[in-house]
Amino acid sequence: MRGATADPADLRTDLRADLRADLRANAAVLSGGEVLADYLHGRAADFLRGLRLYGESGADTEAAAEAARSLRGAARRIGGTLHTYRPLLDGGWADQVRTELGWLSGTLALEHACAARAGRLLGALARLSGPLPQARTEAQLPPGPLGPPGPAYAPPSNPPPSNPPPSSPAAPDRTLTMGASRAGALLERQLTLARTRAHSATLQALGSSRFHAVADAVAVLASEVPLTAAAEAPAGEVLAGPAEAAERRLRDAVATLPLTRAAHPYNADALIHGLAAAAAGEAQDAPWHQVRHLLRLHRYAEEVRSAGSLPDPAPIAAGRTLDHHRDAAEAASAAANAARTPRIAPATAYALGVLHADQRHEVEAARFAFQQVWQKATVTTR
Amino acid sequence: MRGATADPADLRTDLRADLRADLRANAAVLSGGEVLADYLHGRAADFLRGLRLYGESGADTEAAAEAARSLRGAARRIGGTLHTYRPLLDGGWADQVRTELGWLSGTLALEHACAARAGRLLGALARLSGPLPQARTEAQLPPGPLGPPGPAYAPPSNPPPSNPPPSSPAAPDRTLTMGASRAGALLERQLTLARTRAHSATLQALGSSRFHAVADAVAVLASEVPLTAAAEAPAGEVLAGPAEAAERRLRDAVATLPLTRAAHPYNADALIHGLAAAAAGEAQDAPWHQVRHLLRLHRYAEEVRSAGSLPDPAPIAAGRTLDHHRDAAEAASAAANAARTPRIAPATAYALGVLHADQRHEVEAARFAFQQVWQKATVTTR
Repeated sequence: MRGATADPADLRTDLRADLRADLRANAAVLSGGEVLADYLHGRAADFLRGLRLYGESGADTEAAAEAARSLRGAARRIGGTLHTYRPLLDGGWADQVRTELGWLSGTLALEHACAARAGRLLGALARLSGPLPQARTEAQLPPGPLGPPGPAYAPPSNPPPSNPPPSSPAAPDRTLTMGASRAGALLERQLTLARTRAHSATLQALGSSRFHAVADAVAVLASEVPLTAAAEAPAGEVLAGPAEAAERRLRDAVATLPLTRAAHPYNADALIHGLAAAAAGEAQDAPWHQVRHLLRLHRYAEEVRSAGSLPDPAPIAAGRTLDHHRDAAEAASAAANAARTPRIAPATAYALGVLHADQRHEVEAARFAFQQVWQKATVTTR
Repeated sequence: MRGATADPADLRTDLRADLRADLRANAAVLSGGEVLADYLHGRAADFLRGLRLYGESGADTEAAAEAARSLRGAARRIGGTLHTYRPLLDGGWADQVRTELGWLSGTLALEHACAARAGRLLGALARLSGPLPQARTEAQLPPGPLGPPGPAYAPPSNPPPSNPPPSSPAAPDRTLTMGASRAGALLERQLTLARTRAHSATLQALGSSRFHAVADAVAVLASEVPLTAAAEAPAGEVLAGPAEAAERRLRDAVATLPLTRAAHPYNADALIHGLAAAAAGEAQDAPWHQVRHLLRLHRYAEEVRSAGSLPDPAPIAAGRTLDHHRDAAEAASAAANAARTPRIAPATAYALGVLHADQRHEVEAARFAFQQVWQKATVTTR
């Protein structure tokens, strides 16, 4: 799968390792275009390497998942850079490539998201129901098309159980365990189906002429970047404007978030109106998702400017809390959707209701965590 | 209803107001028995006044609820004092009166608890579902036998909405609102029935010869207390031992609580194993309920020693968090029990699952709040 273009990219990467040290040392005298091109070259090489590894992975589902992850990461970074630094690039070309990269990373992300969601929901059910009878454990998620649970399957991050509650001596309740077991089986069925569909969509996308056109555009990026005349000015001058605009957009979006409220643990906001409208959660989550998106653009914009030096850990930590926020919100929706399956038993619906509320609670916990990370970062940097 | 014994008690109360100032001024020279008897006289007078007001309240359900509250408070304080200061009292007599007062305050508490639980659950449903269609509002809790919602109906204490989330523009979802509406109607039916039964039980208890025997014992307490010879020693000497033992029992019980864990907001402990066994919650809540009980005994023991001076606010605040803990735990159980009603719709069961989880989160929130109050009190007093 496009192996012919991948090898030269690897060669270029090796050569570029030495060059980058020079780039950093000479940042003051380099042009904006040179710094930008170097970053895009690197990410394009990552993209092509990811593509080659995905093609070579064959039956090794773990390797395929890893390759897809690096493909997605490279596609997001290229797209983000084309967006933020558009004034220094051929605008029409940048917009077109960005749209196509967005389509590609969106398609790739879907399969990963289905797998992660199944892992998160079955993990939460296990936490809520403890060890269940044999019938339940047999129903555990089988390794899907993208391999067995990887890091994406990690249970939601909770503080370490420094003082864990004693395991309950209470006898298992047949109705409750039955409900939890059936809810797990139902979710698994629905999410495995979604995952299989997403996998087919990925394979179909990677074989399409649309994909070949994107890959060609990225292969060109690995050697040359269509810059404007403005990009010839020193990097310190021309990169600052776009990067600061990205940071400003982020700060403005964060300013609209109810952070004072989020700082009060257990404010019960994430569940508000959750029994009135399925979209109530989506409506209140949207500004947080937007901040997550702008935080990424800000991070990538800084990656370009810092030319490979150690990244600021604060935006990464803040981004992680908003990844949890997004994952928990989508898991909560999946639980609510499963509860709409016709003819389910009341015990199954009850378990899905508990699960939905549990995940909305994780949404609230993620907002609390974001607020803490953000406040700390703001205090440190200002 | 026993009005004949209530009037002398009122007279005594008036006379005692002046005496108490002297008591405080002369605490060093008073005997333990004198201080103890003064406290018990006061609470017995409260008890008899509450009883008279309850008898006089007639159709005024608000006055009846207020009278029942003061009756319960007096019964708990007398019982707690007989327990803590038992070494200074005729032990057999103290145990017998305490058992009977426990029966009485337990019976009175049931009706109040049913009303408060309905208020809490319907309040939570309203928060979760927002304004519902007309059918829902018609189904609001009618004034029960103990009157319209009083302070006990206050919604769970959340931080002030300094930055309230924007009200969701999402359109109401018929399945969800139907589920919430039916869940509300079901809970209301079940809790109104329980409340009516509890009210009948209260009336029956107050007309029983068993009750007349308790009231007679309390009437005797209003004038004389059967003290032992040990009670003749100075108050400072003989009251300290029992009071400190009560405090030690409290501290020992608090030491067994998972406070380090509770200090991490959103630890999701309160829901753990909640889908495996109905009793899982009860098992993990028990040590907290026990601390609530010991905290009350400690507070009453200090009330005796302080002879009416301003009480320490910390145990009161801590006790309030554990009252919320207990109320939320019982509300969560009621939601889970309602979900076991045969032939309910899946949407109703789903809403009850969300409600159950919401109340278990309130349980967790109350533990967090207790931990904060306790830590602060410990830092201040040590």
